[in-house]
Amino acid sequence: MKILAVHGVNLNTLGTREPHIYGSATLAEVDAALAAQAGELGVELTSFQTNHEGAFVDFLQAEAPSADGIITNPGAWTHYSIALRDALAGTGKPFIEVHFSNIHAREPFRHRSVLAAIARGSVIGLGWRGYLAALETLVALLREERVNHPN
Amino acid sequence: MKILAVHGVNLNTLGTREPHIYGSATLAEVDAALAAQAGELGVELTSFQTNHEGAFVDFLQAEAPSADGIITNPGAWTHYSIALRDALAGTGKPFIEVHFSNIHAREPFRHRSVLAAIARGSVIGLGWRGYLAALETLVALLREERVNHPN
Amino acid sequence: MKILAVHGVNLNTLGTREPHIYGSATLAEVDAALAAQAGELGVELTSFQTNHEGAFVDFLQAEAPSADGIITNPGAWTHYSIALRDALAGTGKPFIEVHFSNIHAREPFRHRSVLAAIARGSVIGLGWRGYLAALETLVALLREERVNHPN
Amino acid sequence: MKILAVHGVNLNTLGTREPHIYGSATLAEVDAALAAQAGELGVELTSFQTNHEGAFVDFLQAEAPSADGIITNPGAWTHYSIALRDALAGTGKPFIEVHFSNIHAREPFRHRSVLAAIARGSVIGLGWRGYLAALETLVALLREERVNHPN
Amino acid sequence: MKILAVHGVNLNTLGTREPHIYGSATLAEVDAALAAQAGELGVELTSFQTNHEGAFVDFLQAEAPSADGIITNPGAWTHYSIALRDALAGTGKPFIEVHFSNIHAREPFRHRSVLAAIARGSVIGLGWRGYLAALETLVALLREERVNHPN
Amino acid sequence: MKILAVHGVNLNTLGTREPHIYGSATLAEVDAALAAQAGELGVELTSFQTNHEGAFVDFLQAEAPSADGIITNPGAWTHYSIALRDALAGTGKPFIEVHFSNIHAREPFRHRSVLAAIARGSVIGLGWRGYLAALETLVALLREERVNHPN
Amino acid sequence: MKILAVHGVNLNTLGTREPHIYGSATLAEVDAALAAQAGELGVELTSFQTNHEGAFVDFLQAEAPSADGIITNPGAWTHYSIALRDALAGTGKPFIEVHFSNIHAREPFRHRSVLAAIARGSVIGLGWRGYLAALETLVALLREERVNHPN
Amino acid sequence: MKILAVHGVNLNTLGTREPHIYGSATLAEVDAALAAQAGELGVELTSFQTNHEGAFVDFLQAEAPSADGIITNPGAWTHYSIALRDALAGTGKPFIEVHFSNIHAREPFRHRSVLAAIARGSVIGLGWRGYLAALETLVALLREERVNHPN
Amino acid sequence: MKILAVHGVNLNTLGTREPHIYGSATLAEVDAALAAQAGELGVELTSFQTNHEGAFVDFLQAEAPSADGIITNPGAWTHYSIALRDALAGTGKPFIEVHFSNIHAREPFRHRSVLAAIARGSVIGLGWRGYLAALETLVALLREERVNHPN
Amino acid sequence: MKILAVHGVNLNTLGTREPHIYGSATLAEVDAALAAQAGELGVELTSFQTNHEGAFVDFLQAEAPSADGIITNPGAWTHYSIALRDALAGTGKPFIEVHFSNIHAREPFRHRSVLAAIARGSVIGLGWRGYLAALETLVALLREERVNHPN
Amino acid sequence: MKILAVHGVNLNTLGTREPHIYGSATLAEVDAALAAQAGELGVELTSFQTNHEGAFVDFLQAEAPSADGIITNPGAWTHYSIALRDALAGTGKPFIEVHFSNIHAREPFRHRSVLAAIARGSVIGLGWRGYLAALETLVALLREERVNHPN
Amino acid sequence: MKILAVHGVNLNTLGTREPHIYGSATLAEVDAALAAQAGELGVELTSFQTNHEGAFVDFLQAEAPSADGIITNPGAWTHYSIALRDALAGTGKPFIEVHFSNIHAREPFRHRSVLAAIARGSVIGLGWRGYLAALETLVALLREERVNHPN
Repeated sequence: MKILAVHGVNLNTLGTREPHIYGSATLAEVDAALAAQAGELGVELTSFQTNHEGAFVDFLQAEAPSADGIITNPGAWTHYSIALRDALAGTGKPFIEVHFSNIHAREPFRHRSVLAAIARGSVIGLGWRGYLAALETLVALLREERVNHPN
Repeated sequence: MKILAVHGVNLNTLGTREPHIYGSATLAEVDAALAAQAGELGVELTSFQTNHEGAFVDFLQAEAPSADGIITNPGAWTHYSIALRDALAGTGKPFIEVHFSNIHAREPFRHRSVLAAIARGSVIGLGWRGYLAALETLVALLREERVNHPN
Repeated sequence: MKILAVHGVNLNTLGTREPHIYGSATLAEVDAALAAQAGELGVELTSFQTNHEGAFVDFLQAEAPSADGIITNPGAWTHYSIALRDALAGTGKPFIEVHFSNIHAREPFRHRSVLAAIARGSVIGLGWRGYLAALETLVALLREERVNHPN
Repeated sequence: MKILAVHGVNLNTLGTREPHIYGSATLAEVDAALAAQAGELGVELTSFQTNHEGAFVDFLQAEAPSADGIITNPGAWTHYSIALRDALAGTGKPFIEVHFSNIHAREPFRHRSVLAAIARGSVIGLGWRGYLAALETLVALLREERVNHPN
Repeated sequence: MKILAVHGVNLNTLGTREPHIYGSATLAEVDAALAAQAGELGVELTSFQTNHEGAFVDFLQAEAPSADGIITNPGAWTHYSIALRDALAGTGKPFIEVHFSNIHAREPFRHRSVLAAIARGSVIGLGWRGYLAALETLVALLREERVNHPN
Repeated sequence: MKILAVHGVNLNTLGTREPHIYGSATLAEVDAALAAQAGELGVELTSFQTNHEGAFVDFLQAEAPSADGIITNPGAWTHYSIALRDALAGTGKPFIEVHFSNIHAREPFRHRSVLAAIARGSVIGLGWRGYLAALETLVALLREERVNHPN
Repeated sequence: MKILAVHGVNLNTLGTREPHIYGSATLAEVDAALAAQAGELGVELTSFQTNHEGAFVDFLQAEAPSADGIITNPGAWTHYSIALRDALAGTGKPFIEVHFSNIHAREPFRHRSVLAAIARGSVIGLGWRGYLAALETLVALLREERVNHPN
Repeated sequence: MKILAVHGVNLNTLGTREPHIYGSATLAEVDAALAAQAGELGVELTSFQTNHEGAFVDFLQAEAPSADGIITNPGAWTHYSIALRDALAGTGKPFIEVHFSNIHAREPFRHRSVLAAIARGSVIGLGWRGYLAALETLVALLREERVNHPN
Repeated sequence: MKILAVHGVNLNTLGTREPHIYGSATLAEVDAALAAQAGELGVELTSFQTNHEGAFVDFLQAEAPSADGIITNPGAWTHYSIALRDALAGTGKPFIEVHFSNIHAREPFRHRSVLAAIARGSVIGLGWRGYLAALETLVALLREERVNHPN
Repeated sequence: MKILAVHGVNLNTLGTREPHIYGSATLAEVDAALAAQAGELGVELTSFQTNHEGAFVDFLQAEAPSADGIITNPGAWTHYSIALRDALAGTGKPFIEVHFSNIHAREPFRHRSVLAAIARGSVIGLGWRGYLAALETLVALLREERVNHPN
Repeated sequence: MKILAVHGVNLNTLGTREPHIYGSATLAEVDAALAAQAGELGVELTSFQTNHEGAFVDFLQAEAPSADGIITNPGAWTHYSIALRDALAGTGKPFIEVHFSNIHAREPFRHRSVLAAIARGSVIGLGWRGYLAALETLVALLREERVNHPN
Repeated sequence: MKILAVHGVNLNTLGTREPHIYGSATLAEVDAALAAQAGELGVELTSFQTNHEGAFVDFLQAEAPSADGIITNPGAWTHYSIALRDALAGTGKPFIEVHFSNIHAREPFRHRSVLAAIARGSVIGLGWRGYLAALETLVALLREERVNHPN
C-alpha cells in the first residue's frame, strides 16, 4: 500500500513561519515522523512539497495512479484553488485534508475549504500530530475496504 | 489524566440510524473502543450521551472541573446550539470536535459549526476511527503541555 | 396501521396563547378530533406533546419503530431544530408537517422550516383542520403504498 | 357555495410530464375527483387550466366575483408571477395554494412562493390528494365563517 | 405586584465562568440583590434558573399567569431559541431582556436577539446592575400603566 | 406629436381592486382625463390595457414606431418582466414609468423596478394625477428636444 | 395653503455642477419657476436650501408646523440621512420627494432612498419640471383632502 | 430527425432592435440560414417565434413529442420564466440554449439563465452563427447517441 | 464626578414628535429628571442637545476631557454616523447608549447601532426612565472602578 | 490567419479524468480534430496545454501578438484566475471560452466565469464538438471583420 | 498652482485621539509639514479642517474653483457621506484620498470608502507621511498634464 | 538597508498592455526610476517580476530574510492569492501594496485586496509615481523605527 503526503504552498517554511500559529516543528521533522509511522504501519510513503500550484497538479497526475490514498495540506490553496480540487478528484483516490492550525478560529476567508466536500474527511487544528492521525486512519480505512471489496 | 467523551443528540441510535451515512458501529461499540484505547494510553475516560441539550450542559458543568480535556460529537446541535458553545467555553478545558460523516459533503446547513472556533481542533468524516484519533491526539497534546508547563 | 401525532413546544397552550393567531381550539380538542377521525379511518393514533426538545427526540426513537407514519407540528422548533430533523429522518417513516398559522404571512424567520425538505409534504395555515387533512391524506398514501409494495 | 379550481402553466400535462415528480394522475382525473368531492360536499366547482398568465388573470377577474373561494396550483408561476398575486389579492376571496410535489425538497428557486403570504394556507407535496384536502378544508372554513358572520 | 426573574442556560455558573466577560458576582448574589431591591420596591419576586429550554418554557407557562412582568436573561438561547420567544409572547406579559456583557462588542452571532422585537426593552452590558435597573424600571412602568388603565 | 399610454396587468380593475391602495378612479376615468389633457396639450394619445404580457409587447412593437413617447404603468410586471424592459428599450422612444401607489411603502419585492434604469423618469405614489403629471412633463420634454434638435 | 420647497446638499450649485447629469437650470431659476407656479395655483411657497443637515432639520422643525405640505430634494442625503427621515416624519405633513436625475440609472448606492417609504410619492428623472409636477400634484391632493375632510 | 428552433419574446424584431447589440440579421434571415443548414444536414427543421409565454409553452407541448431536439433562444424569458424551464424539461428532449449577445458582458440580471442547468449546453455571444453552431452540434450529438443506443 | 447627557438630532421635539412612539415627556422634562437624579447621586450633570452632527462632535471634544462618563441618545445618527462613533471613542470615557423606543421592534435600519460595539452598554425601549437607569448605573460603575483603581 | 487553442489545468487528463463528466476523448484527439478542421478552414492553429497558471500567461504574452484569435478552455482557472483574465484582455485579441461540461448543471462555484465578461462569446456543455464550433465561428467572425475593416 | 488640503471630522484631535491608531503628530504639525513641502514644490497650499459636513461642502464650493487639485482625509465621513462625494465630484478637480491608519486592517465598516471610485487615487496607512506623498504626487501629475494639455 | 520591489503577474507587459488603464511607462522604466530613487535614498533595491505565483513565493522566501521591507504590486493576484498573503506575512517584514490604476474605479472584483489587511499601507491609482511614493515612505518609516528601537 502506498500513500502520498502532499504539502502545498509555504509549508516548506514550517517551524519558522509564524510559529505561534503553526508550531515549531519543521516540515522535515513532520516528514520524518510520517515516514517512521508509515514504517510501523507497513506502508510506503512518498512526501512532496511545492510552492507551485502547477507542480502540485503535475505531482498528483504522475504519482496518484500508483498510490492508494493521499493526505494533503494544500496551505493557502485550500481556500481558492479549484484546480487542486479537480486534480484531487481526478485521481479517483481517497484523500484526507490536514490543517496545522484551527482554520475556523482565524480569518473568515480561511473557514472555507474548496476541497472539503470531496475529501474523505479532514483533521484540523491538531498540529503535526494531525498528519499522523490522518495517516493512521487512512491506512486503516483502506485496509478495511480492501477486506470488504477484495477486488 | 481524565478525558470526557460527550455524545449529543441522536447519537444513541448510531449503527441503526441511516447507516449509509453514519456507519454500522453502535455507540456502545464506539465507547468500548474508546475505553480500550484509554486503557492503553493510561488515562481515565468517562462517556456520556444525551438527547437533552440541558443535560449536556449539566454534565459539562458537573464533570469538566475534574477532567483534563473533552472529545465531543454534539450531533445536530453542532450547527445551532450556542448554549453548548458557551458551556464548552465555560469549562476552560481543551476539546476536540468529532463528526462521523463529512459534514462538508452534506447539506449546506451542516457546513457551519458554532463550536469550531473555540475548539482545539476537529476530526471530520473518519467514522468511529475519528474518535480514536481525537482521543490519542488530545492526550498527547495535554501531556506535552503538562511537560512544558508543569505548574 | 399506527400513526403518531407529535406536538412540539408551546402547543400545550393552544386555545389560550394568542388565539387571534392560533385559533381557540385547545390541544385536547385537536387530539380528540384526531382520535375520532383515526377511529373512522380504522387506524391507531398516539398523540404526544412536549416542551422539551430532548423528549421529542426520545419519543420518536421509542415509538416510531412500531408506527407507520407521523404527523407533526414542532412549533417554534420548526425553524431551527436540526436535532428534530435528524430524529425524524432517523425514523425512516414518512411524515407530514402541519402548521396552524400561515407561517409565510408572519415574521421572516418563520418562513424557513428546517424539516420541510425531508417531509413528505406540509399543510400550512388551515388551523386544526390541517391536522385532520394531514391524517386523512397520510393514511391514504400509506395504504396506497402498501397495496403497491405489499412486502 | 361556489369554488374555483384554477390550474396554471404546464399542469395540462400532468400524468405524462416527469411522472416520477408529479405522479401519474392526469388533470382530467384530478378534476373528476374534485368534481366528485364537490358533489359530496354540496358545492359548485368550476375548474380551469391555462398556460397563459394573462388568461389566468382574465379568468379570475371574470369568475371570482361570483365565487366564494379558490384553490389554485399556479405551477411555475408560483415562483415569480406577481401578476397572479395581485389578481388573487384583487378577488378579495380566500384561496388555498396547492403543490403536487414537495417544493422544499427541490431546487432552491422553488422554495419561494410569491403567493404564499396572501393565501389562507397551503398544501404541499401530497399529490392529487392535496387538492381534495384543500377543497374539503376550504369549504369547511367558509361554512364556519358564514355561521359566525351570517351577514 | 409579582415579577419573575428568569435566568437561562449557563447562568448558574455566573461568577466562575469566564469572569473577565461576565464579572465575578454569582447568580445567588444577583438573586439576593434582586430580592433586596424587590423588597424596597414592595413587589414580590420569583427567581428561576435552568439549563433546559423546556424547563424555561414550562416555568413561564406555569408562573406567568399569576405574574405582572418578567425580567429575563436567557443566555445563549437569546440568539436562536424561537421557542422562548413564543413562550414569552404567549404569556402576554411585558418583559425586559437583560445581558451582562455587551453582546454588540462580541462575536457577530451574539448581536442578534430573537427576543428583542417583542420585548418591552433591553438592558445590555451593565453587569448585575443591569438586572436592578430592569427591575426598577419595569415596576415603575407597570405602576404607571396600572394608574392609567385601572381596569 | 403622438403619445402612447400603456397600462399593464390588473389595471383594468382600477377603482374596484383594493381601492384603499389604488384609489377609486376607474381606468376609463383615467383614460378620459388623459385624453382631455392630451387635447389641451394638442397631442394625440392612444391608450391600451392588457393582462397579457405578450399583447403588451405586440402593442409596443406595432404602435411605438409611429409614436413620440410613452407613459406606462405595467402593474406587477414592473417587478419582473424583463421582456417588457426589452420591448420598451426596443422602441427607442423615451418613456415615463407611473405607479398609482407608493411602491416603496409596500412589500420589499415592489421596491425594485426592472424598467426604471432605462426610463426617462418615474412618477410614483401620486394616484391618477401621476399620469397627468407624466403626460404633461413628457410632452414638454419632447417639445424642448424637438426645438434643440429640429432634425 | 402654504408649501415648503426644501433643497438639500449641493443643490445650490445646480446648473454648474455636472450639467450633463443635472441640467443647466440654476436653483434660482427653479425657485423662480416654482414661485410663478405657486402664484398661479394661489398658494404660498417658501424655498430653502442648505448644505448643513442640521440646518435642514432646524428649518423643518421651525417652518413645517405652519405649512400644509412639503416638496423636497435632499440631494445626497436621500441615500443615508435617517435624521432627515425622522425630521420629515416628525412634521406630520405630506411630502413629495423630487430628484433631477434618474437615480435608478446611476450608481447602485443612489437606488436606495431612506425617505421614500414615508413620502406620499416621488418624481424622479424629470429635471426641474419634476418640481413643478410635484407642486401641482401636491396642491391638488391637499385640496381634495381638505374637501373630503373639511375639519 | 426533426429539430425545433424556438425563438422567444422580442426576437421578431431582430435586425432592427438595438442592432449594436443584436446585429443586423433579421429573424427571417436567421431562419433561412437554419433551414439551409438543416437541408445540408438532412434533418427537418421547424421554426417558431412568439411574444407570448403561453404560446411558447403550447408550441412545445404540441410539437416536441414528434421532435428529436430543440434549439432555443427565449430572449428575456431566459432570466425569469420558470414556466419555460418546466415546459422544456417536460418535453424530455435535449435542447441547446442560444444567445445572440454575450449576456455576461451586459447587465447583471442577464447573467443568470433559469434554463441553463437543464440544457444540454449553451452557445453565447456568437450572433446568428451561434444558431448554426448549435444546430450542427445538436444533430451530431443526437446521431452519435442514436448509434450508441439504437433503441 | 461629572457626567454628560448628550442628546442628538430631533430629540428637541420629544413629547410632540410621534408621541405614540417616543412618549409625551419633553426633553426639558427629561433633563429636569436627570438633573434631579444627579443631585441625589451627588454628581454634576451637563445636558446638551443639537441637530448638527458637527456640534455634537465639537461638544464632546470640548467637554469630555473634564467629564467622567457620558450618557447619550444620538437619535437617528445612531444608525449611520461613524463620525459620532469616532468622537465618542476619542473621548476615552465610558458611555451608555440610550433609546426611548425599542429600536428592534421598528424598521430594520434601526436595528443596527454603529456605536453599540464601543459603548459600555445600552438601555433600549424604556422611555425617559431609560435615561435615569443609565445615569444611576453609570455613576455606580464609575465609583466602583474608582475604588478598585484609586489612581 | 492564426488561431491559438489554449488548454488549462488538468485538461491533459481528458479522456481518463472523470469520463462520465468530461467524455472519453483525449486532448490529443481534440487537438487532432482541431488541426484537421483548421486545415479545412485554411487557418494556422497552435495548440498548447499547461497545468501552470504562469505558463499559460507566458504563452499568451509570447504567442498572441502574432495570432488573430484565441479559443480557450482554462479548466478550473475559469472560476478564479483573474490573472488569466488580465492576460487575455492584455492580448487585445478576440477569444471564445469553451467548456466540455455544462458548468451550470454542476456545483455553484462552477457557474461563475471570471473570463466570460471579456470574451467574445462562449460554448458550454457540448463536449469536444464545442471546440470545433468555436473554431469555425471564430474564423468566420474574424474573416467578416477583416472584410468590413480591411485595414 | 494651488492645492487644497481638506481635513474632515475629528482630525483636529490628531495626536491626542487614540495615538496608537493615528500616531502622535498633531494636525498643526501635519499642516506645517505640508506647507513646508508646498514651499519646496513651489505651489500654494490652503489647509482647512471642520467637524461639520456642511462646512466641508461649503469650503469646497468656495475654494475649489480657484484650486488645481485637492488632497483630503474626510475622516469617518469617508465611509458614508455621499454628500462629500457629490461635492468633490462637483469641483471637477482631481483629488487624492489620504488615510492615516490602514483602514483595511480595522473594522469592516471602514473598508468601504464612498469616495474612492471618483478619486484619482488613495494613500492609506502611511501616517502623516501619506499626506506628503499625496501632495508631491498630485503636483507632479498636474504638472505633467499641464505639459501635455497646455490649454 | 535593503528593499525588495516585487512585481506580479502581467506586470512585465506594462506600457503595452491596455495603456489607457496602466499608462505607457514600461516595467524597465519603473525599475530604473526606483533604482535611481533608491540611490538617492542610500538604500539597496532588488527588483523582481514573475508571472508564476510559486516563483513569487520562492523569491520572498529566499530574499526577504536579508531585506528590511517590501513594496509590491502583485497584479491580479491581489484579488485572490491567499498564498501570496501567507508568503508576505511569513516574511515578518513590513510591506506597502501599490496599484497603478485606481482599483476602486474598476470592476467590483478588483475592489477587494486579500493583502491589504496585513500591509503597512497602500498607494493606489497614482501610476508609476505610486512606486516612488511607496519607496520613499517605506524607507522613512523604517529609519524612524530603527531610531526608536535601535535593537
